[in-house]
Amino acid sequence: MCCQTFMCSLSLSLSQTLSNSLSLSQTLSQTLKLSLSQTLKLSLKLSNSLSLKLSNSLSLKLSNSQTLSLSPFAAGGAGTGRMFYLIGLGLSDEKDITARGLEIVKRCDEVFLEAYTAILMVNSDKLEAFYGRPVTVADRELVEQQCEERLLLPAKEKDIALLVVGDPFAATTHTDLVTRCKSLGVPCQAVHNASIMNAIGCCGLQLYNFGRTVSIVFFTEQWRPDSFYAKMKANKDMGLHTLCLVDIKVKEQSIENLIKGRKIFEPPRYMTVNQCAKQLLEVEEKYGEGVCGPDSLAVGVARVGCTDQRIVFGTLSELVTVDFGPPLHSLVVIGETDEIEREVLDMYKIDDSTPRVAEEPDDLDVHCT
Amino acid sequence: MCCQTFMCSLSLSLSQTLSNSLSLSQTLSQTLKLSLSQTLKLSLKLSNSLSLKLSNSLSLKLSNSQTLSLSPFAAGGAGTGRMFYLIGLGLSDEKDITARGLEIVKRCDEVFLEAYTAILMVNSDKLEAFYGRPVTVADRELVEQQCEERLLLPAKEKDIALLVVGDPFAATTHTDLVTRCKSLGVPCQAVHNASIMNAIGCCGLQLYNFGRTVSIVFFTEQWRPDSFYAKMKANKDMGLHTLCLVDIKVKEQSIENLIKGRKIFEPPRYMTVNQCAKQLLEVEEKYGEGVCGPDSLAVGVARVGCTDQRIVFGTLSELVTVDFGPPLHSLVVIGETDEIEREVLDMYKIDDSTPRVAEEPDDLDVHCT
Repeated sequence: MCCQTFMCSLSLSLSQTLSNSLSLSQTLSQTLKLSLSQTLKLSLKLSNSLSLKLSNSLSLKLSNSQTLSLSPFAAGGAGTGRMFYLIGLGLSDEKDITARGLEIVKRCDEVFLEAYTAILMVNSDKLEAFYGRPVTVADRELVEQQCEERLLLPAKEKDIALLVVGDPFAATTHTDLVTRCKSLGVPCQAVHNASIMNAIGCCGLQLYNFGRTVSIVFFTEQWRPDSFYAKMKANKDMGLHTLCLVDIKVKEQSIENLIKGRKIFEPPRYMTVNQCAKQLLEVEEKYGEGVCGPDSLAVGVARVGCTDQRIVFGTLSELVTVDFGPPLHSLVVIGETDEIEREVLDMYKIDDSTPRVAEEPDDLDVHCT
Repeated sequence: MCCQTFMCSLSLSLSQTLSNSLSLSQTLSQTLKLSLSQTLKLSLKLSNSLSLKLSNSLSLKLSNSQTLSLSPFAAGGAGTGRMFYLIGLGLSDEKDITARGLEIVKRCDEVFLEAYTAILMVNSDKLEAFYGRPVTVADRELVEQQCEERLLLPAKEKDIALLVVGDPFAATTHTDLVTRCKSLGVPCQAVHNASIMNAIGCCGLQLYNFGRTVSIVFFTEQWRPDSFYAKMKANKDMGLHTLCLVDIKVKEQSIENLIKGRKIFEPPRYMTVNQCAKQLLEVEEKYGEGVCGPDSLAVGVARVGCTDQRIVFGTLSELVTVDFGPPLHSLVVIGETDEIEREVLDMYKIDDSTPRVAEEPDDLDVHCT
């Protein structure tokens, strides 16, 4: 059993070495490979007293091949080193994938695109064209209910990639996939990329000066959750900025269709900065602690990382009037700012040239060209 | 003057369109290009009453071509659309650049690598080999004292790129470059990438559950700054995790060499998880508020995103004993955790197979293979 583990892990570590032909890390794995095979010979002819040392050295190799499990399954299909890849796509379009990610996507047996926790600014055809290979769109049902049979277990026989907008670990769903891999003994690897959680730095506010991030969901008649307000207040009391991630609803079913089990989906909805600001103002009305009132300074961003990215700095009541264009939007309620932060924000200050939403009286002037 | 601005901006917007031949954003810029040239014709034959509308529509185009200035300089060398690019390289090696970033690097006239706020796991030769072009290493002096003449002003005539480890806006220095571009009238564009601020999600802790990030600097005899403790306590009181970014010292001068103005630099130093944990324990000793004591749960990470990435979960006193290998390291002091967070952390729990640092008695056993 012990040796079994070692063998699988050895072949895993080898195939890993091949699949990562990288300068420094290669040299590393080269030496590891050697020491491992030596270790293995020892384990074949020798006693239990050695096996502790072996598992010690082995865990090194494993952490070096980024595998999350020490079980004999870890290597997947009898040490063929098949892998489940979680690959971040970044924020904008097909060109935001990293060179490493692209390399993996090109050689994977199957590639899925997670298309419900966030969206790219391009559809899957664009991705397929750029990658030069087919991509299967994976909706919530596939990722959350069928992930074992469709995504994870096949990764014991094949290389499977799940493409995720932003960074792979931005959403709980994807972190959960890593633990499922572990329990199924499926080797798993992630390729990081930008997400709004760090790219928001583009508005000039320093990431060090952000407090806890909050999520703002669409208010309904019956459901107007405002627990974000207390978190936002705690940030404000410490002079920290609050990043508000806004709701998106993709492939949602109406209550009726849900009950009747009809696979009929509502059109996708993406919350705008305007809606988000309005909801914040409503909740400020309710609690009145001066956390996110009409005069609170904020910066709205749209399509961060895209060529048509838009950033506008103003009061919440001003931002309600701004036309930010297509999704995705985010809003930051600003705490205390230092000089550099203020300098950058000033570049994005709302003025007469800022496009406004249709309801606005000055709309005709703005759009008449 | 007004029209001058428009012309520059028009040609800028056009060259931008060319330089970003992207699906959706292209279609966008196509339409923009049209409306812009129409606008421009108007501006040539018409009155001031129009120019407000023009600058309205124009600012749209400009925000769509991601330029940060409306001045006639904005277009750089008489509308040749030259650009200063801040390009994030991500966390590990030459392959973590995005496809978009690589495209820009290949066609830039000059490419600099910022090499003092963070490091890649590869040297600039590797980058040059992968990019197929020369890369100039830019030290602190070049980026902070000579940036105008070396980096920014040349971007009025040429395409200049500054490559930055992680995301371009992770460090204040780079945000500052954006404002300098603005004041110099140099068009500037950023390409985002992963940074430790979002990639830390790989340890299983949800980014939503992080409070303010703190920096831990090397303690000296005279200087043992511990303002991080209060911030960490505030996070803990809210049940939030604290990401500790650890100090790195590259191209630092000794006080003596600094005073004597001698360009002699100390060898680079990178704080380890062990040193960081020890400093936290020392400050806990001092204040004793149970924020980061020997039994506080934490997770240490090293070389996140690299093939030899290491993640170990344990108490601070346990992590002091762990060998995390080469830089860069980071440490998270853990707040309240949910079930998924605990499941992932368990995968990284310290055990007998975890490599230990040399001082540790069991070291011989661990390294004997």
